Amino acid sequence: MSGSINLKTSVRIEMVDITSSVQKEVSNSGIKDGVCTVYVPHTTAGITINEGADPSVCYDILTKLNELAPPNAGYKHMEGNADSHIKASLMGSSVSVIVENGRLILGTWQKIFFCEFDGPRSRRVLFKI
Amino acid sequence: MSGSINLKTSVRIEMVDITSSVQKEVSNSGIKDGVCTVYVPHTTAGITINEGADPSVCYDILTKLNELAPPNAGYKHMEGNADSHIKASLMGSSVSVIVENGRLILGTWQKIFFCEFDGPRSRRVLFKI
Amino acid sequence: MSGSINLKTSVRIEMVDITSSVQKEVSNSGIKDGVCTVYVPHTTAGITINEGADPSVCYDILTKLNELAPPNAGYKHMEGNADSHIKASLMGSSVSVIVENGRLILGTWQKIFFCEFDGPRSRRVLFKI
Repeated sequence: MSGSINLKTSVRIEMVDITSSVQKEVSNSGIKDGVCTVYVPHTTAGITINEGADPSVCYDILTKLNELAPPNAGYKHMEGNADSHIKASLMGSSVSVIVENGRLILGTWQKIFFCEFDGPRSRRVLFKI
Repeated sequence: MSGSINLKTSVRIEMVDITSSVQKEVSNSGIKDGVCTVYVPHTTAGITINEGADPSVCYDILTKLNELAPPNAGYKHMEGNADSHIKASLMGSSVSVIVENGRLILGTWQKIFFCEFDGPRSRRVLFKI
Repeated sequence: MSGSINLKTSVRIEMVDITSSVQKEVSNSGIKDGVCTVYVPHTTAGITINEGADPSVCYDILTKLNELAPPNAGYKHMEGNADSHIKASLMGSSVSVIVENGRLILGTWQKIFFCEFDGPRSRRVLFKI
């Protein structure tokens, strides 16, 4: 079973918790056991799994990514978002989460984050269970 | 078929070769062909596949990660492990390995490494084949 | 259905667009729906999905990886390719792409890139659909 989730981001770089949207799709699918592949079909956005309890964790991850690949730092790609492409590859374009009894099996503190690196934009996330 | 592997790490940051444990689970499952998803349900640990023959490779990877995201470098997250969360997202929370004839299909030098970034701790790795 | 794709790289570090080779294998398999796991069985090469329209994007990604993990920068691993191993783990060893109606579901600008970090070499990419 597959489908997509739409979202809107509101700043240039942010991490959006999409865990409950993905869980809702898993529940709707009726599938009890399997692996859920969550895929970002964009080249200036990524996806990662990390802590959702304290928003400072996302802040620190984004700050570090901006430090490792700062915007407008003499890149060859002329669209002003070379750093966004680099960040996307560092985070990756998909995550795989095990599904059991119709639930995403995540650790206690884990949330699935869509990583916007060139927003604000309308974005899409694909999934297949 | 799914399950989990328990492990204990012994220092703050280390890479633990879990290849034989994962292979044992694949063998026990009786599954001959498929994809084995190995998943880390923690937010201060990751997983990667790299060279296992020379331990210096892991040493260099960990040293570089400490250089890119040093501990206690003015982060906002106040638990003293912001760097661990960043390292976890840089490595990723899962790997996918093809299984054929009941064997993980890895390259000659490849091993699967659990990456501890905030140990020592008792940890768990989930798998689904 | 599984198999492998052979390729030759021509310089030390480069990104090779393998999208059409992977799509050809998906088409040949006759499989209409699923997930295609593309796996690199090497420890000094990785795989990523990013923009294929402007080659400057790959140039910027590779330049940044060389900046984050420069060759011969006092590593412990003595084979002269410690940086290649680090880059491989930063990019990852596999990607998962959703397949529908026999087509890889990629975003408009997305291409699948084999990332050579210690070439030139003869390399192999494994896939399972």
